[in-house]
Amino acid sequence: MNWDYLQPVKIRFGKGRVSEVKDLAKEMGIKNGLLVADPFFFTNGLAERIVKESEGAIIASFGDLSPNPDVTEVDACAAIIREKEIGFVVALGGGSSMDCAKAAASIALTDDSIRKYHGTGVAMPQEHLPLIAVPTTAGTGSEVTCVSVLTDHANGKKSPIVSDGFFPSYAIIDPELTYTMPPKVTAGTGIDVLSHALEGFWSKGHQPICDACALHAAELVFQYLYKAYLDPADEEAREKMCEASLIAGLAFTLPKTTSSHACSFPLTNIHHIPHGEACGMTLDYFARINAKGADGARIDEFARKLGFKDTEEMADAIHELKAKMGLRNDLKDLHLTEEQISELVRISRHPNLYNNPVEITDEMLSEMYHKLA
Amino acid sequence: MNWDYLQPVKIRFGKGRVSEVKDLAKEMGIKNGLLVADPFFFTNGLAERIVKESEGAIIASFGDLSPNPDVTEVDACAAIIREKEIGFVVALGGGSSMDCAKAAASIALTDDSIRKYHGTGVAMPQEHLPLIAVPTTAGTGSEVTCVSVLTDHANGKKSPIVSDGFFPSYAIIDPELTYTMPPKVTAGTGIDVLSHALEGFWSKGHQPICDACALHAAELVFQYLYKAYLDPADEEAREKMCEASLIAGLAFTLPKTTSSHACSFPLTNIHHIPHGEACGMTLDYFARINAKGADGARIDEFARKLGFKDTEEMADAIHELKAKMGLRNDLKDLHLTEEQISELVRISRHPNLYNNPVEITDEMLSEMYHKLA
Repeated sequence: MNWDYLQPVKIRFGKGRVSEVKDLAKEMGIKNGLLVADPFFFTNGLAERIVKESEGAIIASFGDLSPNPDVTEVDACAAIIREKEIGFVVALGGGSSMDCAKAAASIALTDDSIRKYHGTGVAMPQEHLPLIAVPTTAGTGSEVTCVSVLTDHANGKKSPIVSDGFFPSYAIIDPELTYTMPPKVTAGTGIDVLSHALEGFWSKGHQPICDACALHAAELVFQYLYKAYLDPADEEAREKMCEASLIAGLAFTLPKTTSSHACSFPLTNIHHIPHGEACGMTLDYFARINAKGADGARIDEFARKLGFKDTEEMADAIHELKAKMGLRNDLKDLHLTEEQISELVRISRHPNLYNNPVEITDEMLSEMYHKLA
Repeated sequence: MNWDYLQPVKIRFGKGRVSEVKDLAKEMGIKNGLLVADPFFFTNGLAERIVKESEGAIIASFGDLSPNPDVTEVDACAAIIREKEIGFVVALGGGSSMDCAKAAASIALTDDSIRKYHGTGVAMPQEHLPLIAVPTTAGTGSEVTCVSVLTDHANGKKSPIVSDGFFPSYAIIDPELTYTMPPKVTAGTGIDVLSHALEGFWSKGHQPICDACALHAAELVFQYLYKAYLDPADEEAREKMCEASLIAGLAFTLPKTTSSHACSFPLTNIHHIPHGEACGMTLDYFARINAKGADGARIDEFARKLGFKDTEEMADAIHELKAKMGLRNDLKDLHLTEEQISELVRISRHPNLYNNPVEITDEMLSEMYHKLA
């Protein structure tokens, strides 16, 4: 089996380590940082704290970001980088700030709009400003991935851009930043972590180092997610979920995700189900499907290493975990019409679907959505 | 728990991939490669083949290397790099060629002798020529580590140099290159892999990503080492041992090794026991010691994940595996005197000993060596 591996992000993990931005700037010999953060952090004091603790390394901020960042926001962020002669970018948030910052830190060194590269197949320039990624949820793993998901609302287009230049230079994972996540967000982002681990493992692009990471991350989710959900102040559970999120990021960024992520996109974009909850919706379903395919023994072995009898028992546990945390296990509340179900089937045919180890036909998608509806 | 992680080496794994040197040179936009290889490969045709397949990317060779490379060999290699205006270095071999190439590729950009940095505490320069590391054994993991072990025979000094600049740019792991390893070498290098995995896991510097790698690698060793030993032509076993060696390299390079490596140094340097066999000599002993310490539950859990009842059962399996492969489980053939045992105790007090999770006293070392003698 041939495989390649690359993981250039330098990781700093631990409570309180968000204060090390100034040290990393010094280590890289760079100045004039820009903080890119979800708007919420400009109201709760965290953005202010990080700027202050940077001791002058961060000189400007950008917070005009929507949850699904728009290409115009990336262009606006890049304009500020050019105007203020920014030397590095700090991205703080759950995912959208990192999506925006990755793209802006690359195009800022050109005169281009991100539209030139968004959904066009034009390769991103490799040169980019150094990025320090600081996640505030235990979910996306975006701090160690080279993907930026952007939306062009004006042209009705949402698509990921992949570029080696999007790997952050540093990721600071500070579990304290996740203590304030409400249980509902803990649940959804945590199921996203499990999706990354499982899908990275069973992806057609699976490979050994990522397999080892997937197993480690999935084990932590089964052990700690419900604890973090029940008691947001459980520091051990918070730290372990941060570890799981990071290591699941390592597990999926090269193999890529599969069917559950493919199906999540219409559920989120059309029916506004949050990303993690949308991924989790079909995770146990596809686990059962994939266990019946040619790679079934591999997936059963993974389940056994997690302490389950087989994939069926693991799928039951995923279903139960979602239910216990108040995440939906069906789409009944949407009262979907036949037409809407057909639309879900059609739009689920996303490139990620083709990474799934078992071929997923429209009939299978239709049967699944009918069961869920 | 605070931890840092860094793994900048780009990995290319798979049968026949040694032929990709030319592609990597093109990818990096560099020319004028130097092949540094153990002398053996200049007699068996492999060096010639690699130069030929590089299609002009490699323009010179260096093979004046001893098994424990001397500082004068590094200086000679660096002189060739300067003289021939070399643009990148390919290191081919079991470990010594990588030790030499890492150091030479760094000092060649200065006028220094490696002696300036060897055992002196002077920090290596960060700038260095790109290095492509190509292991020919499944053992050292040196292709993904930032360590070079050098000897100054004239001054009776052997010590490692650690530098971020020593990380290769690429590692090509081509299992075909290991097919010709004789069973005795397969056994010794394979036990070295297990030492890296176990010691990386129980090291005081252990951390989650390396833990996941350690478990993955150790599992492969228990499953495939004896197969590769019994049947050198077992391609699956060879490939899995290459995977184990690489991933064990990831498991120990940051946490560092511990007591078994510390004790291996006098066994190798004074009594000429090959490195892997010397590490394996005390591996089961220290497994039992460490299982009784404060981290005992962690190590027992690791053993259980490998399918053993506890660490004791895993230690028994290590002992048996060594015996089955004709590796020594004691030092009786050396007919050690009391004075020689005292010498072993004294010289085992190497910095790595202090990474061991249980404090190892001279009394413990003395008791162990008396039992082995």
